[in-house]
Amino acid sequence: MWATGLKAEDGYNLWLRYTKANAPQLNSYRTNITGILPAGASPTIVAATTELFNGCNGILDRNLSLRINVENGTILFGKIENIAKWVTTKIDIPNNPEGFILKTIKENDKTFTVITSKSDIGVLYGCFQLLRLMQTGRKISQLDTMSTPTIQLRLMNHWDNLNRSVERGYAGISIFNWHTLPEYKDQRYKDYARANASIGINGVTVTNVNANAMVLSRPYLDKIAALANIFRPYGIKIYLTARFSAPMELDNLKTADPLNPEVQQWWKKKTAEIYYLIPDFGGFLVKANSEGQPGPQNYNRTHADGANMLADAVAPRGGKVIWRAFVYSQDADDRFKQAYNEFMPLDGQFKENVLVQVKNGPIDFQPREPFSPLFGAMKKTPLMMEFQLTQEYLGQSTHLVYQAPMFKEVLQSDTYQNGKGTTVAKIIEGETYQNKLSGMSGVSNIGNDINWTGHLFGQANWYAYGRLAWDLSLSSESIADEWIRQTFTNEKATIHTIKAIMMSSHQTLVNYMTPMGLGHIMGNGNHYGPAPWSNTLSRADWNPVYYHKADSIGIGFNRTSSGTNALSQYATEVHKLFNNPDSCDERYILWFHHIPWNKQMRSGKTLWEELCLHYYKGVNDVKMMRAQWLSLEKKIDIQRFEHVSMLLNIQVKEAIWWRNACLLYFQTFSKMPIPAKYEQPDQNLEYYKSLRFPYAPGNG
Amino acid sequence: MWATGLKAEDGYNLWLRYTKANAPQLNSYRTNITGILPAGASPTIVAATTELFNGCNGILDRNLSLRINVENGTILFGKIENIAKWVTTKIDIPNNPEGFILKTIKENDKTFTVITSKSDIGVLYGCFQLLRLMQTGRKISQLDTMSTPTIQLRLMNHWDNLNRSVERGYAGISIFNWHTLPEYKDQRYKDYARANASIGINGVTVTNVNANAMVLSRPYLDKIAALANIFRPYGIKIYLTARFSAPMELDNLKTADPLNPEVQQWWKKKTAEIYYLIPDFGGFLVKANSEGQPGPQNYNRTHADGANMLADAVAPRGGKVIWRAFVYSQDADDRFKQAYNEFMPLDGQFKENVLVQVKNGPIDFQPREPFSPLFGAMKKTPLMMEFQLTQEYLGQSTHLVYQAPMFKEVLQSDTYQNGKGTTVAKIIEGETYQNKLSGMSGVSNIGNDINWTGHLFGQANWYAYGRLAWDLSLSSESIADEWIRQTFTNEKATIHTIKAIMMSSHQTLVNYMTPMGLGHIMGNGNHYGPAPWSNTLSRADWNPVYYHKADSIGIGFNRTSSGTNALSQYATEVHKLFNNPDSCDERYILWFHHIPWNKQMRSGKTLWEELCLHYYKGVNDVKMMRAQWLSLEKKIDIQRFEHVSMLLNIQVKEAIWWRNACLLYFQTFSKMPIPAKYEQPDQNLEYYKSLRFPYAPGNG
Repeated sequence: MWATGLKAEDGYNLWLRYTKANAPQLNSYRTNITGILPAGASPTIVAATTELFNGCNGILDRNLSLRINVENGTILFGKIENIAKWVTTKIDIPNNPEGFILKTIKENDKTFTVITSKSDIGVLYGCFQLLRLMQTGRKISQLDTMSTPTIQLRLMNHWDNLNRSVERGYAGISIFNWHTLPEYKDQRYKDYARANASIGINGVTVTNVNANAMVLSRPYLDKIAALANIFRPYGIKIYLTARFSAPMELDNLKTADPLNPEVQQWWKKKTAEIYYLIPDFGGFLVKANSEGQPGPQNYNRTHADGANMLADAVAPRGGKVIWRAFVYSQDADDRFKQAYNEFMPLDGQFKENVLVQVKNGPIDFQPREPFSPLFGAMKKTPLMMEFQLTQEYLGQSTHLVYQAPMFKEVLQSDTYQNGKGTTVAKIIEGETYQNKLSGMSGVSNIGNDINWTGHLFGQANWYAYGRLAWDLSLSSESIADEWIRQTFTNEKATIHTIKAIMMSSHQTLVNYMTPMGLGHIMGNGNHYGPAPWSNTLSRADWNPVYYHKADSIGIGFNRTSSGTNALSQYATEVHKLFNNPDSCDERYILWFHHIPWNKQMRSGKTLWEELCLHYYKGVNDVKMMRAQWLSLEKKIDIQRFEHVSMLLNIQVKEAIWWRNACLLYFQTFSKMPIPAKYEQPDQNLEYYKSLRFPYAPGNG
Repeated sequence: MWATGLKAEDGYNLWLRYTKANAPQLNSYRTNITGILPAGASPTIVAATTELFNGCNGILDRNLSLRINVENGTILFGKIENIAKWVTTKIDIPNNPEGFILKTIKENDKTFTVITSKSDIGVLYGCFQLLRLMQTGRKISQLDTMSTPTIQLRLMNHWDNLNRSVERGYAGISIFNWHTLPEYKDQRYKDYARANASIGINGVTVTNVNANAMVLSRPYLDKIAALANIFRPYGIKIYLTARFSAPMELDNLKTADPLNPEVQQWWKKKTAEIYYLIPDFGGFLVKANSEGQPGPQNYNRTHADGANMLADAVAPRGGKVIWRAFVYSQDADDRFKQAYNEFMPLDGQFKENVLVQVKNGPIDFQPREPFSPLFGAMKKTPLMMEFQLTQEYLGQSTHLVYQAPMFKEVLQSDTYQNGKGTTVAKIIEGETYQNKLSGMSGVSNIGNDINWTGHLFGQANWYAYGRLAWDLSLSSESIADEWIRQTFTNEKATIHTIKAIMMSSHQTLVNYMTPMGLGHIMGNGNHYGPAPWSNTLSRADWNPVYYHKADSIGIGFNRTSSGTNALSQYATEVHKLFNNPDSCDERYILWFHHIPWNKQMRSGKTLWEELCLHYYKGVNDVKMMRAQWLSLEKKIDIQRFEHVSMLLNIQVKEAIWWRNACLLYFQTFSKMPIPAKYEQPDQNLEYYKSLRFPYAPGNG
């Protein structure tokens, strides 16, 4: 009652806890590492040195010495040319300057470890890799590992506003305290950079895509520059969201027409000012002509016209323009189709430093979406993948959902756009069409909560996103394994249990929220909780009823040729597969078909029975997740154990709410009973419809 | 460069750090404490046991044993009747159940420490006192200390909204996450209760006085009840802010008239519901007919009518009603006078479970205000003191200001209302008029920043407020000493330096912001930065120019008989003292007099020269504070050292801003030069007037 063997942890340290290694590894690590020798003195090498000291001292429970020569057990790290005077062995290093090699070397009776690269930042990545190996209990005595990133731009997108509110943020408010910058540099800024660098993230947009022009004003640029100075040693560039009407808002220009010379000049001057303050500025991220944001269409120009104007401004300094494809107007017959319809005609028209950023699915970060038909279709434009780490539609920060399996599902989808095997992963890597640029963005789930992500397991999504962007071939399981070992323990049984929870969690959420291809049936505005009945917003495509189309006959959105024909946007092979309800993956079926309630599904059950089964299975599986977690009581420190336990209680409660509310509502159409073998809802539909949550977080 | 002897600290642990004692004390503490023996098993005794274990184990760097019998070095703690079986020595305990005694006892060759009281909560307070003694390096070998609180209701008032924004909050958002309550119980809730209990705070209003009726709805009451369950073992009662129109907003009553039987019935039912969920509910705090809040005057009833209706509802369960006297209408000739004018006629009309809560000064938490004339004047009504810990007008969370000297200045002011020596302290203690109730409220400066208060030194104001409410006789210096020792170190030179910084800090801020009785010249709305020129808000008494009344002749608000005669609200002796510019304390002079620019002040200098001197001295003294702090570089852990250093840089910058902006503006009236010996402003007035801070925090 009064003591626990495990020290309480608040989660602040993320996966960089650097706790003492277990006995068998400890001895070997202590033999392999006795001191460190930094080659070079750049800010990045200083950062690497600090990290290695803190990390090794923690893991080894020793105070390592700083060496000036190679001795047994030295970690020698630095750029390849800087380590030359201590090593004669030839070391092959990756061509990609971000890549690195970890290598155990024996020379002159001395065994030591070399971490090297073409660049200092590559060296830093290598140091984090070595620390990761130790934190995950791996052998480090005979290293010979080379590693290079798959994707060039590995970005975090913050939807953080200047008043520190975070759109779709569920972990407190923004970590960026603009009011006290540039003078006050919160410790968090550095720790945020460390965490990102440790998983290879190399860029951050610090403000919302629903942009505020003021971030481009001088007082804010000074604040941004202070952040950039903190991030720079960690290889992290700052990108800014550009409000298209900024020239009008900040300097009273009469237009923001991208073909207007004055406007072009304004952006060139603004860009010069930014580069003066932030020499390694990454570029602009733009949401234009979408959900009320201004854009080139206001002047009858195209997205390409807008993007190219900004691209010209940043090009001389190597800057990029990332233009979002998330667009939909209320006139379209099917929101699914609009991004494709607007952007396909522009393929080939973008300047070479422009990337188009596409959400993983065609709608908006639903628990499960088929891949966006733009992937593979736009052959002359580098497409960036936009994943949403913040769980806007995935239980927000109270549901445990490990997103890596969802990311992998999209990445492994075959677009067939360049023949079989043209996976989404190959498209965004740039392999298929030999794009010069490649990128991924993760919409941040980070806030000022002590543990950063609200739900401790939200950290796993941040971690997994970064690791995947570095190496798309990593499996969800292996990433989970790494994260668990660093976050909790190297104890096998505990890893096994937590991994089982994580690996089942996404499908479980889909089951109790939006099974079989349902989507967008969350509460209006806050997107919290079920509201499939909702039909009060001004635009049809903001209302849940638009998405599920339940009626007396059946449920689902007919996107075949007898419906909106959205399926024709996919390659023929995919189109065919999805177009036939009998070949269509049942995980997506209601996304593409309006299916009669009594249609017999592949299991032999009717659609209604299948729906019931999925919803009930979802609830049961959350209960199972909770039971599994509770079995770990003595294995996890009390604070984090209770944190997750309490959240799982909320998740169970809300899963039941989702199940009951959705089935009771759909039942008004199907007129079929919830099979008697199931526990029946204990509240009626009116009760669920009556619930209101005016202060649910994240809404704007 | 790579290591520091002091472990980085983030400030989360407040003054409850329980770090290992220094060598000389350590040995003696280890002799005096070898184990603990809890007498009783109530939740409060369990809390005390946990605290003693954590505290002693940290301070002694030992693992204490849990005893079942008294041995040498045992801490025996529990209610007096519960410890009887282990002690034969007669122990006198305070009558006040919150009081306690700490006593070293020798019996049967055994020396042990007893902590006892009439109540478990008294015992818990005693345990915190023992831990404080050890953390501050005091001797604990021959204890015989009795302690009882001066004030009965020692409350924290949160101005926290249901969406977690905090009005006048500068430390992030609310620690109360209503969305995840009642299921999710953040560790912070318990740590908040611990911190409060450790300084004797025994009640908390968790929501804003600008109240939202929804907090009285059942879903929110369930959340409040969960918090109350966490707070209860720590002796902390929850009070709720009651929106006067709640019966209309929640249940569609046609009126909220306090004399309407249906309305009275509604509040009785609502109160019963609250007590059903929260048996120790403290009562209601009400802001009525002020700044747009509804109240009894909407129905031509008085504040007393409103308060008494609520008082009747809570009386059967021992609840209190706290009615705020912060009122002012735009029609009044002088905002100073209104609280007195509205409340004095009601004296004697309030039910006996009503307290009237009065801000320390007559206006609104300015850097320095004379005491409110209501203190001592209302003889039949218990008055609660309302201090503002959150530094709305005192540099918010970026300026280091230790408020205890300001609190003491008010508490020690002599009202003369019952003869000489009728200090404000005696009034609020209830001594002067033998009030049955007494209370103090501190408007919280707490948010979800990791260190709770944004500025680390904000913790000192929370601490000082609680300690003073427990014992009004404590000096600012002694409280600072305690706080520094617990927060930083017991090392004498460091204590000396930090205490010097703290003790000078309030006067320094007054000097660079609002010297000589100026006030309310901050920026509109956000109250950030200087804006003495501001004159654009719809109400005169919201505009700075209303307060300073600078013109070609002089500056200051004439509140003598030739002006608004507000001074007549004070007792004759005070009136006389303030009424004559030659006897008026020059710290308050512009509060009461319009003084010509060239009037010779007591120093022989003109008013203008004195104003310049104060502003320049303020800046110089902040620079001195910074220099003193920087001298502590090796004495304070790096994280907290840099935190305070960076904030002091902001404070220096902003003090210069204040000085320059105010003097340049006032100079447009005085037409006199800033003496040439001073560094002249490097920007002109237009520059300062042009600054805009739309995202400054805390504004609503």
